Amino acid sequence: MPRNRQFVIDHLPKGKLGPEVFKLGDGPMPTPGEGEVLLRTRYISLDAANRAWMWGATYRAAIKAGDVMAGGALAEVVESRAPGLAPGDLVFGDTGWQDYAAVPAKHLTKLGKAEPMTHLMSVYGIAGLTAYFGLLECGQPKTGETVVVSAAAGSVGMFVGQIAKIKGCRTVGIAGGPDKCAFLTSKLGYDVAIDYKAGNTGRELRALCPDGIDVYFDNVGGDIFEACLFNMKNHGRIACCGAVSQYDAPVPHGPRGIPGLIVTKRLTLKGFVVMDYAEQNDRALADLKGWVASGKLKVYEDIIDGFENLPAALIGLLAGENIGKRMVKVV
Amino acid sequence: MPRNRQFVIDHLPKGKLGPEVFKLGDGPMPTPGEGEVLLRTRYISLDAANRAWMWGATYRAAIKAGDVMAGGALAEVVESRAPGLAPGDLVFGDTGWQDYAAVPAKHLTKLGKAEPMTHLMSVYGIAGLTAYFGLLECGQPKTGETVVVSAAAGSVGMFVGQIAKIKGCRTVGIAGGPDKCAFLTSKLGYDVAIDYKAGNTGRELRALCPDGIDVYFDNVGGDIFEACLFNMKNHGRIACCGAVSQYDAPVPHGPRGIPGLIVTKRLTLKGFVVMDYAEQNDRALADLKGWVASGKLKVYEDIIDGFENLPAALIGLLAGENIGKRMVKVV
Repeated sequence: MPRNRQFVIDHLPKGKLGPEVFKLGDGPMPTPGEGEVLLRTRYISLDAANRAWMWGATYRAAIKAGDVMAGGALAEVVESRAPGLAPGDLVFGDTGWQDYAAVPAKHLTKLGKAEPMTHLMSVYGIAGLTAYFGLLECGQPKTGETVVVSAAAGSVGMFVGQIAKIKGCRTVGIAGGPDKCAFLTSKLGYDVAIDYKAGNTGRELRALCPDGIDVYFDNVGGDIFEACLFNMKNHGRIACCGAVSQYDAPVPHGPRGIPGLIVTKRLTLKGFVVMDYAEQNDRALADLKGWVASGKLKVYEDIIDGFENLPAALIGLLAGENIGKRMVKVV
Repeated sequence: MPRNRQFVIDHLPKGKLGPEVFKLGDGPMPTPGEGEVLLRTRYISLDAANRAWMWGATYRAAIKAGDVMAGGALAEVVESRAPGLAPGDLVFGDTGWQDYAAVPAKHLTKLGKAEPMTHLMSVYGIAGLTAYFGLLECGQPKTGETVVVSAAAGSVGMFVGQIAKIKGCRTVGIAGGPDKCAFLTSKLGYDVAIDYKAGNTGRELRALCPDGIDVYFDNVGGDIFEACLFNMKNHGRIACCGAVSQYDAPVPHGPRGIPGLIVTKRLTLKGFVVMDYAEQNDRALADLKGWVASGKLKVYEDIIDGFENLPAALIGLLAGENIGKRMVKVV
């Protein structure tokens, strides 16, 4: 009988997320009910949203003490009691942080094939689709416009900048530290990079975008959001994708200048969640596959080996240590 | 020779706006240059924006010490050196707070006739058009949806609620004090009113809009903006029209929960300035005139007689004392 390792929430974090929040143990082997499948997790996705879910219900239920830690994974069907799924099929779904999970088939996305398989969780997964829909649907960039991206070396930002470039925009990436900034310009094709840890992001934005920002793709909220807000061009658009700077902060703080600047600059701020665009996934995946095949869209992944490393991988992600899509290889 | 009374800015306000900011005197009679007209101001418009302009350049240049106080007015052409305008024509434009002004014709909007003439500055002026475009273009209300309006008894809010009702929406008005709230439901047809001075606006919104707010028309910013933000329905829209609660505050403060709530609730916030929609004015005016003629749209105006009352009229407007569109009758 195989083990089913699990990370269970010992208690919800009061302040910064630490490893003591997670308790490693062995759970029972789940048994799939009618309409469910038994899954073997292969790669578990690490996302800033994992932390946000601990604050309460959002577009999903809140995480509570005693729960297996929630998280999306690329998983393989081991046993099926649902039509349309057979052993060996690859799916994406919220298995939680465990080796095996029994999940209703209707909560799963059946995946095609990709080489390497991990691309199903980066460029062809939530990260790539989030970048695609957030930039193109919410940001509505036009050729020649200036697009600014925060967390630009992260799982989503990495694709946003490249897609903006494909669409003929000038791209400015914001990231923390010289290594990430070098990565932005040398590997991802950003026109210019701003190291937010090095100084005054607002002043750099003013210098680099003297005519203002047309589209800001916001992954972080907080001070960087504010710096971009004050440098938007009239009629600019802000795609609100996430607020990672706030998820692990004991006292979230909002930007100054809202809503006054929204009025005087006639800005549009649009929040989105990738699943809202699910019916357009086929079109998006066709575009993404074409760009990857032609070499226009580069994929970088940050794969950490070993189930036991999940808590450290999430804590590190919240501290901004990853470049590209972070995931933990389970098996 | 007639006098040209003027209110000149003595100094910009540091904190709350007071009468000492304005200095009444007599200026020279202006002489129109080529392409300009000499205007006699008839009714001067009082707007929260008058105060906002003192903070710095926005969609118009900042007001400075020594300037004639800026402000829009319904004015009559006395002498014309511009084609297309003749003595007796009525126009709207930024004459400033003075009896006479020489203004380039290209900065003026030539007006039709209306009875009473003051409707040209309320329902058929910036207030009515702002309500119309802000609600319909930015808010995109659908029949049966819940529309919440702040400063609902003010010059713009008064029309927003009525237009939302015409479009088949349920309307909730927020205003300060029992008199205004009674006015909202008895005269303007709001389904329900919330007195923000009486208690907890957020709790009342939760009780009155248990399924959430579809469209919030924001005239005020600050705490009321925040209360509405926390009660928006998924995919809700916020039309950002103004932030009057912040204009006269020494330390503007922003709402909590931004941008996190924008993401999780997939909200759209859209700032706008009425002049952005100028090419659609004819259609809007035709709708507004039809609704007024049929009795569906009621017009309330707050007309104060006497040029010398301008400073008190603006200070009172910022304190929320007006019901309906406030203006000062000059002559």
